[in-house]
Amino acid sequence: MSRDSRLAELDRYIEDNLQAFLDDLAALCALPTVSAQARAIDETASAVRDLLEKYGIQAEVLPTSGFPVVYGRAEGASPRTLLCYNHYDVQPAEPFELWDSPPFEATLRDGKLYARGVADDKGHIVCRLAAIAALRAVYGELPCSVIFMIEGEEEIGSVSLPAFIEANADRFQADACLWESGRVDYEGRPQMYLGMRGDFYVELRARCMSRDAHSGQGGSIFPNAAWRLIWALATLKGPDERIRIPGWYDDVRPPSQRDLELLAAAPEQDEELKQTYGIREFLLGASGLELKRRQIFEPTCTISGIASGYQGPGSKTVLPAEAMAKVDFRLVPEQRPEDLRVKLRRHLEEQGFGDIEIIEHCGYPAARVDPDHPFVQMVAEAGREVYGKEPVIHPMSGGSGPMDPFVRVLRVPIANAGIGYPDSRAHAPNEHIRLSDFVDGVKHTARVMLRLPEL
Amino acid sequence: MSRDSRLAELDRYIEDNLQAFLDDLAALCALPTVSAQARAIDETASAVRDLLEKYGIQAEVLPTSGFPVVYGRAEGASPRTLLCYNHYDVQPAEPFELWDSPPFEATLRDGKLYARGVADDKGHIVCRLAAIAALRAVYGELPCSVIFMIEGEEEIGSVSLPAFIEANADRFQADACLWESGRVDYEGRPQMYLGMRGDFYVELRARCMSRDAHSGQGGSIFPNAAWRLIWALATLKGPDERIRIPGWYDDVRPPSQRDLELLAAAPEQDEELKQTYGIREFLLGASGLELKRRQIFEPTCTISGIASGYQGPGSKTVLPAEAMAKVDFRLVPEQRPEDLRVKLRRHLEEQGFGDIEIIEHCGYPAARVDPDHPFVQMVAEAGREVYGKEPVIHPMSGGSGPMDPFVRVLRVPIANAGIGYPDSRAHAPNEHIRLSDFVDGVKHTARVMLRLPEL
Repeated sequence: MSRDSRLAELDRYIEDNLQAFLDDLAALCALPTVSAQARAIDETASAVRDLLEKYGIQAEVLPTSGFPVVYGRAEGASPRTLLCYNHYDVQPAEPFELWDSPPFEATLRDGKLYARGVADDKGHIVCRLAAIAALRAVYGELPCSVIFMIEGEEEIGSVSLPAFIEANADRFQADACLWESGRVDYEGRPQMYLGMRGDFYVELRARCMSRDAHSGQGGSIFPNAAWRLIWALATLKGPDERIRIPGWYDDVRPPSQRDLELLAAAPEQDEELKQTYGIREFLLGASGLELKRRQIFEPTCTISGIASGYQGPGSKTVLPAEAMAKVDFRLVPEQRPEDLRVKLRRHLEEQGFGDIEIIEHCGYPAARVDPDHPFVQMVAEAGREVYGKEPVIHPMSGGSGPMDPFVRVLRVPIANAGIGYPDSRAHAPNEHIRLSDFVDGVKHTARVMLRLPEL
Repeated sequence: MSRDSRLAELDRYIEDNLQAFLDDLAALCALPTVSAQARAIDETASAVRDLLEKYGIQAEVLPTSGFPVVYGRAEGASPRTLLCYNHYDVQPAEPFELWDSPPFEATLRDGKLYARGVADDKGHIVCRLAAIAALRAVYGELPCSVIFMIEGEEEIGSVSLPAFIEANADRFQADACLWESGRVDYEGRPQMYLGMRGDFYVELRARCMSRDAHSGQGGSIFPNAAWRLIWALATLKGPDERIRIPGWYDDVRPPSQRDLELLAAAPEQDEELKQTYGIREFLLGASGLELKRRQIFEPTCTISGIASGYQGPGSKTVLPAEAMAKVDFRLVPEQRPEDLRVKLRRHLEEQGFGDIEIIEHCGYPAARVDPDHPFVQMVAEAGREVYGKEPVIHPMSGGSGPMDPFVRVLRVPIANAGIGYPDSRAHAPNEHIRLSDFVDGVKHTARVMLRLPEL
């Protein structure tokens, strides 16, 4: 049979077996694996191990200092090995009331499958298993060996993963790595992200009294935790979007010439983003190349949550004893969490907010991949074939992930092939995938495995 | 029978019938009359009307432009009339998890009765009914007529009450008024508050996007509602506790010489307050007379609540589309809500925060009572007799209430007799009364009714 007719058969297999893959995905999404809330962790790790074994992959659940990693290995016909990094944990589903169907009950509507984790990242686990099933069915064997590293702490900062990788580097030796997710843009072009920003995510807490008071009695004499926190936060960043913590930008490296070329080549998404999020203007009026640069090469300081006192309808005349904020700092190359942690603490103290407690939820640096590595080029070519469009190569993602130990310890080149699109609403209510994207993502992934031996 | 032995009989009646009064109170507290959430309003108004009738008081539920007022009238033997102002609504019970027993299930522990509203203000309704029952039982009649005005919007700013009073002034003509509540201090001295601060309570809302985004994707390019709100709030007040809205202090009248005398005569509560609320130091290091002055004669800007984004455990990497804060401004004489409303709006616009929405939950001015009015002196004397201690006369309360139409329209002198103490936790979890305070409050109230004809 010719190469092309085998590929056609491969694609047909993927299309014909879609429902079976979606059934497996729906079963995974029924588990509320919210790592931030330590829910259903062991249950999901076991379910993922069982699912890998169902697809003929030797699998086991390995302990870490935190939530376990599911490790899987399938032998292939060539000496080449592909590492698939994924995670089985999901973001919290709150606010529940904004979901049109229950978040942990996969629901099909208009060619889209809705559930928390269906895109990020359980769908990508199933996508890779589907590719393996299709290759074995059509070619009788896997063209390369495939190793799975499926962790359970990605949504809470992959705190245990770096040490786990250092300690288990032997198991994960590979020639290349597919990162946890991939997506197309609004025009259907596959997206590749050659690196990720780092993340330093902290919770700030103010506590000024042992209990709430009446705002009439205490308003002019008692310390107010909400005010303390607001004043402390206001010292971190102002409307000019510049982070005011001394030394925060010391280690920031500007994008290289090659980075700027890639940025310039990537299509503009200004209008699509504005429409999707109902935005009139981007921060600081940025657009075009400057918007693209800011989105990934700028350190951020985002308030992801804040809470104090009464939040219900109407009024409650209370003076709250406690307040908290979640602050998400994204890091660009060469910022280091261990350095920034000290600078944040010192800054708060110098500003008179030494009483604010800092709880660190995660801290890891940014990581980069060489855009000219042959693996990156091969994944792009495979994408061109499946999608019929020119892949977009981004010098880095605005998002974050534990890529540093893959680059530093495992020394693998990394690329993306996946099932998302810009409106997948990862981390938001009504997370979903389009079934057509799922099918394309499986085809792309299978082609990457097919071509790896030729690398 | 001598005057003293009749009084002894009165007191014994109150003590002997305590359980029946508490049963009536427990029944009222079982109704979750949270006006901020519009819960159980009509049900409670009917229950209060029925309770008044059970105590032999003609009662009816009168409509207002908002929640209804329960009106009651009991004829007395003299031409004097006492107006009892109360409210049947309560504060929200959130956060529920901090209650040691269910908030809407009155629970007796260690001589204290716990429930939302047991002190503020359902217990005071029953206290006054108990006084009437005792007087009728022992004296065969009421010494004065008693009118009840029991509203349902006190905890949400008594928005409809001023117009209701203007329209129904004829029904409420009286010689004097007992305000909704009263309490003793830590030393058991009855407290009288000759006036109340006003209250201007607003909700500020920021909305920057049509939906939440991923903080990795959007952190450096999308507008963040939580940041917008924090920056806007930070322009309202700084750590110097001075409200920065231009003109906010224009109409503030400093305390008079008589006010300062009363303040100086009132006992210091610095240590008790510090202990109750676990505070090391009061705002701006105030103490003694300055603390007493600041507590009631200083305009406030209190954040009573703030909410945006993710508030659960751990981290969620979200960029929130919306944020809200509840801001409670207490007003001193002669600040006017209609003036301050304009100044707040203008200030936000001038500071570049014209996009912040302002929702007004209540707005009424401060009110004052003449400390040398004979009624005030009489209530103090009756208190001295019951409590065996010198009553404390405060020139004004730090708290607020709709006192303005009573002073301006009904022109009644106002004083306090009631059942609270400093740790009653009105507006907070574990609200309660001590049974001994309840008994004393009924005795005090009955004596006020007894002495009114002599005024």
